[in-house]
This record gives sequence, C-alpha cells and structure tokens, in this order.
Amino acid sequence: MRVTISGGVHGNELLGIYLVKKLQNESFSIKGLELDFLLANPKAIKECRRYIDYDLNRSFNTDTLTQDSHLYEFERAKVIKEHLKNCDFLIDLHTTTANMGITVVLSSREQRSENVAKILADEFDEVRILRWFGSSEGDFINVVAPASITIEVGAVCQGVLDSTLFFKTLKVVKRVLHILQTKEQIDGSKECYDIFETINFPRDADNEIVAMIHPDLMGRDYSVVHRGDPIFIGFDEREYFFERDEAYAVFINEAAYYEKGIAFCLSKKSAV
Amino acid sequence: MRVTISGGVHGNELLGIYLVKKLQNESFSIKGLELDFLLANPKAIKECRRYIDYDLNRSFNTDTLTQDSHLYEFERAKVIKEHLKNCDFLIDLHTTTANMGITVVLSSREQRSENVAKILADEFDEVRILRWFGSSEGDFINVVAPASITIEVGAVCQGVLDSTLFFKTLKVVKRVLHILQTKEQIDGSKECYDIFETINFPRDADNEIVAMIHPDLMGRDYSVVHRGDPIFIGFDEREYFFERDEAYAVFINEAAYYEKGIAFCLSKKSAV
Repeated sequence: MRVTISGGVHGNELLGIYLVKKLQNESFSIKGLELDFLLANPKAIKECRRYIDYDLNRSFNTDTLTQDSHLYEFERAKVIKEHLKNCDFLIDLHTTTANMGITVVLSSREQRSENVAKILADEFDEVRILRWFGSSEGDFINVVAPASITIEVGAVCQGVLDSTLFFKTLKVVKRVLHILQTKEQIDGSKECYDIFETINFPRDADNEIVAMIHPDLMGRDYSVVHRGDPIFIGFDEREYFFERDEAYAVFINEAAYYEKGIAFCLSKKSAV
Repeated sequence: MRVTISGGVHGNELLGIYLVKKLQNESFSIKGLELDFLLANPKAIKECRRYIDYDLNRSFNTDTLTQDSHLYEFERAKVIKEHLKNCDFLIDLHTTTANMGITVVLSSREQRSENVAKILADEFDEVRILRWFGSSEGDFINVVAPASITIEVGAVCQGVLDSTLFFKTLKVVKRVLHILQTKEQIDGSKECYDIFETINFPRDADNEIVAMIHPDLMGRDYSVVHRGDPIFIGFDEREYFFERDEAYAVFINEAAYYEKGIAFCLSKKSAV
C-alpha cells in the first residue's frame, strides 16, 4: 500500500512542511507501507505564501487538470495528479488560524478514509471529524487520491511553528500509518460535523469589510451559534447578530478566507 | 501640531490598516491637532503581504533614501519621507504574532515620544515600553519623523483582525492624541525594556531550521529567561537550553522574523 504524506499545499502553513521534511530527513519507514513524501507547492513554500497564482487546494477540477494554463498552481496540480497516480491513501497536512484543534477533514464518503477518521476521533480527545465535500472555488487535492484524510491543525498563525501542535500532529499521523499498516477497523458510527454554508463578513458598497468577528465568537470553533447571538462587531462598534437556525461554527476568522470574504463556516452535527 | 497615524507599513498587519481606515471614514478630528492618515504600503496591503520587494520598515536609511532603486519599498520610503516632512508626531501601528500585549516601541531618546510612552504605561495595564534603537537590516520609518511611537499589538496572526485588540488599541491611540492635544507631561521615570540582541533558530548546514520555540517559552514575552531554561525543541525532540545571563524575551516566534532567522529578541529591564 502506497501512502503519500503531503505538506505545503499552502506554502505558509509550516507545520505540514516541516513534518514532511522531518520524516524525509529521518528516512522514516513503516513495515508493509510504501511511504511517499510530497512538498506540494515548492514556489509558495519558498516565498512563505499560501499560493503564487491561485489556491492549489482549489485547483484539482477536471477542466483545470486537462487544459493548458499559465497559472503556476494549475500546472502544479497536473504534476501532483500524475505523482499521486499510484497513491492508495493521502494524508494532507494543513494549519488554520481558527481554533480547530486537530480536525480530520473528510472530503468524500469513502470507507477507508472514514474508518481512519473514526479511529482517530475515538482515541484522541482533540480530534474532531469534519466533512467538507467541496468548494465552489475549485476541487481539493483529495479528488486525485482514491482515499484520503486532510488534517487541519489550529489555532496557528501563518508562517509560524507551534511545537506543541507539531508533536500532537506527528502522533496522529503516525497513528494513521499504523492503522493503514494493520488494516484495523472500527465498528459503529462517530460524531462528525458537516459544513453546509459559509458566512461572509459584512461589507460596504465598495466591498470593504465593515466588521470583525465578535469577541463572543472568537476562538469558539465547534460551539453552537444560536439565533440572536452576536457574531460580528463593526469598526463603529455596532453589533451584528446571527439570524439563522442554530449551527456549529467552524473556521472562525481563518486568515486565508478574508480574500474570499468568508468570516466562518456553518456546520451541523451528524454521524459518520 | 501635525500628527500622522500610519497603518500598513506591513501590508498583512490588518489592525493598523483598518484602524486608519476607520478614522479616515469617520473624518475623525480632534481640536488643536492637524490629523493625517497614512496607509503606508498600498501594494502590500492590496496583496495582504508584509512587503513586495523589501521590508518597508527597514528601508529608511540615508543611502536608500537618496539613491535610485527598482525596489518598490525603497521608492515608497522616499514618498513617505516627503509626506512626513511637516509631521510633528508619528503614531505607527503594527501587529505581531508574539504575545506582546500592547507594546509602545521607542526608537530614539526623544523627550516628547518618551513622555507619551510613559503616560500610556502609567495608565494602561497592558502597555509596556520597549526601546529598540535600530536594526542592522535598515532604518525604521521613525527616523523620518521628529517624534514618534510605534505600537506593536499581539498576539495576532498576519492577515487577521482581532476585535478585542482592535478596540483596546483604538483607545490607546485616542489617548495619545489627547496627550498631544493637551501637552500633558508626566514626571519621573517608568520601567522599560531595551532590546540588545536577537537569538536565531538553530539551523543545519543547509541553513534549514532544525528546532522550534520550546513550549515552555511560547507566549511568555516579557518574562525572564534564565541560564539553563529550555528555549528550543528540535524536530527530533532534542531540547536546546539558554546559555547566557538572564534576560527578558520579546518578539517570541514572530512570523515575520523567520526569514531573518530570528526566533526571539533579548531585552534588559531599564527605565525611561
């Protein structure tokens, strides 16, 4: 079984980059698995930027993968697709500025991926399962792997290493490899969260942000937001309230989503 | 008296940018002061990057200010120098990923700047005074203003707004303007910290980082580091210990300093 561990799909998310480099430098191996290490976006890693031309983790659409392009990440996506053609399982490492702990993201209803996620959620207190089946901006790297999990770790600033979270994530990654090695299975279902919508920052006519995440919501990823809860506070100190049915907020105040206009995502509790 | 409030000397430090925009949009004024608002690095602000070609806040050297250059920030420094030629007092707004609270940085021994800093430290629990008289990489914007304070606010991630810190900083900025308006003076001296050295990340022969800030040091800006305290932890879990006389650590794990190789700065307690 060939397992790819990728870091640096986003070049300013250092944890995955240095975790991959560490395992590479140590020639880390595990019996019965063919390990492959991928630093996915070398140019962005070098410049410590999320991407050069376009978000690589939104560049795996069928059309972008088959058409010629002058965008660095679209070309990179083709190279990665080819690189992953014999990959059986992908572990893709990310960080977030949101307080997401160690979130295992599932991007399809694939049984082996779900099994791994469930065992991790069963064993690690800080692991939660989040299902995110796609973005309107483009497809994730996961679509070119037959089975995969994405690990999102936070809160960590872009361009920064947090040693505590580094070693926690390393432990989780090693456990994933162990599960794949032993083909261990878990019965029953586990709690998960399904992203179903994104909430944008309030903006003015010039498309300028006019409010920030409310202090009451900051850092409260995976907590329930009720109708009427304050969610934003304007630069003029005006409060903005949640006007929907209750939901669980995730990716609250993620730096990379500002340019997309996204303030946080809504999820509902489910089971996988 | 002409007072300039500048944000966005670093384009990914959103607090100062949006604080300046807020005051501009509200046509904020204060009797007896001529207020001037400066978004210092428009290109970097647009791209949400620290800088385009070179750190603008290291671009105010006499030679770079007088020579032709193709670097965007060197040209921008000349424009800003001209912009500030009638400025009497500069308030320059920054954020840091280090846990620095609200730090008032003094970059010269100028009496009006010191007076403002001391009143702030006297009144606000979270305000500390840090003296930093220059960097080997180039001069700060402060050298082209006759009097100034820099306000460093953290911990905040690059590209992120923290509403609590935003309004705390706004309060401090308004108090500065009030002090300048009333010409209020404070007697006596106040505690301050003087930066005297920088500590680099341990690196290997290829100049690659091999260790991270130790969990025991993370977030402990302004606390004393003793000889023998653990300061780094390697990717291989090896611990690295402090081998100098005790000092106060500041700018611990600042994202922007990774490319400079700096892990944190050492300061000693003094009085201003």
